[in-house]
Amino acid sequence: MVTLKATGIVVEYNPFHNGHLHHVQEAKKRTGADVMIAVMSGNFLQRGEPAFVDKWTRAQMALQSGVDLVFELPYRFATANAPVFAKGAIEILDAAHCHAYCFGSEDGTIQPFLESMELIDQHRVSYEAAVKEAMSCGMSYPKALNEAYKHILEDAQKTDPPVDLTKPNNILGYHYMEAAKEIRSSMTPVTIPRIVAQYHDDAVAGNAIASATGIRKTFFTSGALEEVSGFLPEASERLLHKWQQEREAFGSWEYFYPSLRLIIIREGASRLTSIAEIVEGMENSIYKAALSNQTFSGFMEQVKSKRYTWTRIQRMITHILTGFTTSMREEIPHASYLRLLGMTANGRDYLNRTKKELKLPLVSKAASFKDPSLTADIRASDIYALAMTQDKGSATLGTDYLNRPHIL
Amino acid sequence: MVTLKATGIVVEYNPFHNGHLHHVQEAKKRTGADVMIAVMSGNFLQRGEPAFVDKWTRAQMALQSGVDLVFELPYRFATANAPVFAKGAIEILDAAHCHAYCFGSEDGTIQPFLESMELIDQHRVSYEAAVKEAMSCGMSYPKALNEAYKHILEDAQKTDPPVDLTKPNNILGYHYMEAAKEIRSSMTPVTIPRIVAQYHDDAVAGNAIASATGIRKTFFTSGALEEVSGFLPEASERLLHKWQQEREAFGSWEYFYPSLRLIIIREGASRLTSIAEIVEGMENSIYKAALSNQTFSGFMEQVKSKRYTWTRIQRMITHILTGFTTSMREEIPHASYLRLLGMTANGRDYLNRTKKELKLPLVSKAASFKDPSLTADIRASDIYALAMTQDKGSATLGTDYLNRPHIL
Repeated sequence: MVTLKATGIVVEYNPFHNGHLHHVQEAKKRTGADVMIAVMSGNFLQRGEPAFVDKWTRAQMALQSGVDLVFELPYRFATANAPVFAKGAIEILDAAHCHAYCFGSEDGTIQPFLESMELIDQHRVSYEAAVKEAMSCGMSYPKALNEAYKHILEDAQKTDPPVDLTKPNNILGYHYMEAAKEIRSSMTPVTIPRIVAQYHDDAVAGNAIASATGIRKTFFTSGALEEVSGFLPEASERLLHKWQQEREAFGSWEYFYPSLRLIIIREGASRLTSIAEIVEGMENSIYKAALSNQTFSGFMEQVKSKRYTWTRIQRMITHILTGFTTSMREEIPHASYLRLLGMTANGRDYLNRTKKELKLPLVSKAASFKDPSLTADIRASDIYALAMTQDKGSATLGTDYLNRPHIL
Repeated sequence: MVTLKATGIVVEYNPFHNGHLHHVQEAKKRTGADVMIAVMSGNFLQRGEPAFVDKWTRAQMALQSGVDLVFELPYRFATANAPVFAKGAIEILDAAHCHAYCFGSEDGTIQPFLESMELIDQHRVSYEAAVKEAMSCGMSYPKALNEAYKHILEDAQKTDPPVDLTKPNNILGYHYMEAAKEIRSSMTPVTIPRIVAQYHDDAVAGNAIASATGIRKTFFTSGALEEVSGFLPEASERLLHKWQQEREAFGSWEYFYPSLRLIIIREGASRLTSIAEIVEGMENSIYKAALSNQTFSGFMEQVKSKRYTWTRIQRMITHILTGFTTSMREEIPHASYLRLLGMTANGRDYLNRTKKELKLPLVSKAASFKDPSLTADIRASDIYALAMTQDKGSATLGTDYLNRPHIL
């Protein structure tokens, strides 16, 4: 049997837009891939937010726009900081037997990443000490990392860093490469430049590029999908329309806040301390803010602090909402399965051919696989479904448990 | 200063109806009371249900219909079985310096209660052994109590029991008297016969009597307060209309079910085991039923079992909803404060005169009193408020904490 060459990408698709389409097409072309594999966040995302639409819908968008296989990045990794997020994603792509992985970056070429990695490797001890020190002074993780990186550049007497690690996509890319090195993956790293958002004129033509954040923001401001359709491939637009007809609302913290608030009040400050990422003292300010705020924006305004990034706080409340504790998190050191959310005929062909080379069990029927990480995924999906239908009580739960992958 | 004579009553007022009005008036007359003191369940009731309207509204109904002082029966006692419910209520009435307490009963005279108590006291050891044995055979508490009572009657060769303890109001009355004896209260027990529900013809005349359960059922079936107004004093009717205008919905498990379901799914079966009253195995059936049922009736249909009464199961889910654990419950052995929900001028006068004789601290500003039982009351009130406004996110929490008693 001829081996098919697969390229992996790490995605959130919140929602899938023209920039994502471009990335899939470019990644495929540059790596000469036969098959495109995406590892995608589930219903809660890396910035600690509920997804705009659920993972099954987002997987369909991907399958209709050039992706052949979609695996779920487990909740534990999808909602974690950059190094852990990257580790889970790379473990899955490596287990799926990808030849290469491709990420968008501000830098856009791979050589500087390799140089930065080498530089940091040469100064590993002082680098890690500097990260630790910066964090003990109350710096957020991303800032501490950059502080340490700056120290190393100074030590090496470099004025220009090989890669600018203050840029968010460069940081993720760097962590993918570190994670791949850590597990001695044979995958080739490839990066392509991120496309800068274009103007609204292009949107009218239907092929404009805007960030997913920008698209959601425009939608939530106007309430009309028509306002953002210029930035979306046809499949995305159609699936978003279908979602809107069926559910009335899209996922957001504003919409989920009544559910979050109920849970915070019921838990009380002291029980919140068992939740993952809750650091001392935050349980009190989160509890007090929930007591006195009827809106999510008011809540965050009161909770936010200089000490923790907005994203970090959102990750805390994500774990509160889903009931994800520190001890649950500790039970999940590595990605432990390939949860298939969907595949094309081409993807299925790939799986049939590489079955024996997959390094982790392939899960297409979640009900028949027991794993603490999968339990967390399923619970997060159920909570998402309940919060989406909070006023109707109509959520059919257990569907995530029973759902089978989309086959295109 | 002349001492005022107070009579205590134990109430739920869910909602306050003509039968309650009759009871207040009769109790006052028969005991020659200057002041009527009600100890009233808060937002969750003895059958393990959310109240039809909140405790502040129900306290107002009472104050406008002959009650002078309303104290809250703390959550821990209000949602417990008959002996514990009775104990908390009697401790509060005794602490409020009542001369007498008066309860409605099927029997209607006090002598048979005294005889039953004496009988059980004489056979205390075999009685308690029989209760224990019956419960170990899987019998519910009320049934076990009756089984033990039957044994004693047989031993004493009595064919007619002094009091029929299969009747719900007789049972409560018996427990009030046991609780009063336990704390050596000097209060005089008085009972008056319960009035049997009348026909609808009387309702039209505006002074018919129906049970609170019947009134709620009729309302929930028709959705119209007009259908039940014949059973309600004018004050109750007016306050229910006001509530309806402001809140749209009335408290019920059907309405609270989406909130309950969210919490059950988030907790997962294993964490439910820490909740008060959850007995082994129930955590699994409750979790499974929540997963697969979109309505409360479907949920209960699946959860109900021969082993546990409907009421018992409802108490379990009440504690799940409010997050009330076994260890919280153990921290509250006795009533520890008199939480004032409202008073008339007459009630205020009484408090001024008896201030020094009150056996528990009088709490009219909850914010300035720290107590684990009060914490549970406040949390239960907040959860009730959130579940009542689940789809609007408009609950102003912390109001229970800050609320001051109604003064009429």
